[in-house]
Amino acid sequence: MGGQWVSNSQFSIMKLLKELNLDVFPQYQSGYNRIVVHSLTDVRRFCGHLPPLNLLHLIDLHLMIRKIEKMVAMVSAENPLACRFAGEWDEQTLQTFVEKTCWFSSNVEMMAAVTRVMFGAEPSQISLFYFLYYCSLGGGFEILTKNGKDSAQEYRLKDTASNIVDVLQEKIGSDNVSCDDPVVSICQKENEFVLVKTKKGKIYHARHVICAIPLNLVNHIDFVPPLPHDRLELSSRAPMGNIIKFVATYEHAFWRAHGDSGESVMLVKKSTTGPLSVTFDATTFNGDPAIVGFIGGEHAVYWTTKSKLERESIVIQSLVAILGKEAESLLLQYADKDWCKEPYQSGGPVCMMQPGCLKYFHQALRRPFYSVHWAGTETAQKWTGFMDGAVESGIRAASEVANRLQLPQNVSADESVSKIFDDKGLPWKKSNRGLFGVIWLPALLVLGAYFVYKNQRVEQG
Amino acid sequence: MGGQWVSNSQFSIMKLLKELNLDVFPQYQSGYNRIVVHSLTDVRRFCGHLPPLNLLHLIDLHLMIRKIEKMVAMVSAENPLACRFAGEWDEQTLQTFVEKTCWFSSNVEMMAAVTRVMFGAEPSQISLFYFLYYCSLGGGFEILTKNGKDSAQEYRLKDTASNIVDVLQEKIGSDNVSCDDPVVSICQKENEFVLVKTKKGKIYHARHVICAIPLNLVNHIDFVPPLPHDRLELSSRAPMGNIIKFVATYEHAFWRAHGDSGESVMLVKKSTTGPLSVTFDATTFNGDPAIVGFIGGEHAVYWTTKSKLERESIVIQSLVAILGKEAESLLLQYADKDWCKEPYQSGGPVCMMQPGCLKYFHQALRRPFYSVHWAGTETAQKWTGFMDGAVESGIRAASEVANRLQLPQNVSADESVSKIFDDKGLPWKKSNRGLFGVIWLPALLVLGAYFVYKNQRVEQG
Repeated sequence: MGGQWVSNSQFSIMKLLKELNLDVFPQYQSGYNRIVVHSLTDVRRFCGHLPPLNLLHLIDLHLMIRKIEKMVAMVSAENPLACRFAGEWDEQTLQTFVEKTCWFSSNVEMMAAVTRVMFGAEPSQISLFYFLYYCSLGGGFEILTKNGKDSAQEYRLKDTASNIVDVLQEKIGSDNVSCDDPVVSICQKENEFVLVKTKKGKIYHARHVICAIPLNLVNHIDFVPPLPHDRLELSSRAPMGNIIKFVATYEHAFWRAHGDSGESVMLVKKSTTGPLSVTFDATTFNGDPAIVGFIGGEHAVYWTTKSKLERESIVIQSLVAILGKEAESLLLQYADKDWCKEPYQSGGPVCMMQPGCLKYFHQALRRPFYSVHWAGTETAQKWTGFMDGAVESGIRAASEVANRLQLPQNVSADESVSKIFDDKGLPWKKSNRGLFGVIWLPALLVLGAYFVYKNQRVEQG
Repeated sequence: MGGQWVSNSQFSIMKLLKELNLDVFPQYQSGYNRIVVHSLTDVRRFCGHLPPLNLLHLIDLHLMIRKIEKMVAMVSAENPLACRFAGEWDEQTLQTFVEKTCWFSSNVEMMAAVTRVMFGAEPSQISLFYFLYYCSLGGGFEILTKNGKDSAQEYRLKDTASNIVDVLQEKIGSDNVSCDDPVVSICQKENEFVLVKTKKGKIYHARHVICAIPLNLVNHIDFVPPLPHDRLELSSRAPMGNIIKFVATYEHAFWRAHGDSGESVMLVKKSTTGPLSVTFDATTFNGDPAIVGFIGGEHAVYWTTKSKLERESIVIQSLVAILGKEAESLLLQYADKDWCKEPYQSGGPVCMMQPGCLKYFHQALRRPFYSVHWAGTETAQKWTGFMDGAVESGIRAASEVANRLQLPQNVSADESVSKIFDDKGLPWKKSNRGLFGVIWLPALLVLGAYFVYKNQRVEQG
């Protein structure tokens, strides 16, 4: 119910998977896709990337995508504020841009379907500039949204994403990992160890701390001294999206038998009738047939207030309209995960910046706060919002700490994480500074980044 | 350095002031005002409401204000979502609307000067719909921004706003009020007392709790069971603005001698040269001459990172350009309050909803959460953002609790607060449910609402 997709263009996560001997397999994409236009009575079947809309609609869609790609190319991942339109683009919502750009409401709805699954939000709830920055970090709008080679939905994990965490935890040693005990305060004094207090009353001492929780949860921790103003602003101006992920398992993959890919996109505004955003084939590597899908944005806001039974009913009803009546008759099990209800996540899949946030407070995103360093996918410099971004940010934060401790520089953002999990043991294990000292911190942070995914978050991937 | 203005159109606060025998006096507004256009080298003097802009600028400004007033009239304070443009207006920032509406950049800057002092924010950081809703609750855009009869800046308190708190506290009894000990958790169980835990480890038992802190701080409290999703969303999608308030005291009111009112508005974009938004005459009732002013929005984001000395230098430099060289030579003292640095406020003067917040989550604003009721100016039904809204919301929340306790119905949102502070004693004192029981809660909540102002917040008024 969390992250499941990775891509060859996501170097950090792919490298890690290889080192951990965890395997991937291609996302099933053969056959016809479906698109639902305006209501569930208008379901259209199509092949390839070109949806069956009329020519003017298609030209409109093409022009919008070309315009977005052009704008994305102007926003650099390293220094987004260098873009000369940064101010102008951060003053408006994505919705404003799409409405100004598109001729047809179906294309406005197309963008909504994208952001509902990408951010768990409506285009009105995202800054245009942040959206472009996000796309830039993933390599472009089309890479994030299309299928096939190097796209965000290229491969699936053979096991679940939590399996990565389990393997990492084993390597570190389970005794060195504490779960189910959230941090409540972080106190720092010059030249002294950082004190990290948890809800259950445990106190940890550390030279450095890497904080890998989502942006919006940072202000739940009591920092002494308090966080600088700009870091707090990031926390209060980047809410988490709203998303519900479901998986429907079936007796057999009837859609494949029909020549369908199981992939569909819904351009439906009304939450009460068509709550889905997208679906994909989710048949496991072992061959258990399934369909996965997302209820996101305003649809999730509505359906989070309903019971699981009510959600099952509307989801299966929608799947019947899209894929055929077997979606009901062959159903084995419906399961969903309402990420809005996760207290240490408060939504999903990712925090998104509001208008007038990135422009004023970007400089605080990765800037260490004395001995506290920042990781987590929102702080990534590549593929923010994805598992890859989490790993990349973990390596970067580890490198910052290693630098400050003047440890052997075999950890850097450019190097393989394999160095951290070297078979000969952790390279700085010898210094033996005690259990809660710094020795295993650089290793732990990568695990920390993963825990965000295991316990607290769902990814698009 | 907190709230200072009230108005005859603010019934709740005026009634309370009368009952507490606290007096007001008119804001000094005689003489010429100043307007700074684009840079501090272009300072213009004018009388009345019509700024000395060219005719086309004035027509543009007039049309924008008329359009806003028309839109405000369509947003009802009770049920804003009944407005048929609610969706459309909540999908865009105020900046988008102003840029679409205005012909001249000076009028875009005029709106920025307004929101910098009204919300401590740029027009890009506020939902258009929320802005209209906010104006609607104050009776219209012009009432909030203009001077004179019934406007938001009509009267000033003879004493400070904290004086109201002191008098109320005296009436309740200081022993019944606990300060400097923030609440960290609120636990509720059916048919049991609510447990309220503080940072210093105190535990209070109460039948009902009224929570009167700003929206953005609600998620700093650990609620068991957790708050419903929509109430949490309000908390994470309504950040506090950024504002710094300053007062410069002088040997004598040299601006009055020049025929000036001391009032000025700055239409300057660059934070580094002209950081002020507006200034007013702040001469005390006893006749000590002073000028008060605000640094808000992006200007505050910039100047909060500087020292008080640096701020003093730029503020006095600006006042010299606006009011004359005596602003430096006759200066007795410069004092400022950076509300961005207040940990239990994290900005000022008020929380503002981001695009796509009011539309989806308004229903949660005042809805009690089991035994927890909501007060504070953001939950007001009139004059939200002002001291008046805080008092009004306090009376409404008290009435909710009194209703549920089936107490004698002499407290209601429509009635005078005098009933609460009746000379014969608190009407439900006789039931004697213990110090931390419910007996004094309805009285305390009004105090609570005020404490928000005394300790944590600056108001426009």
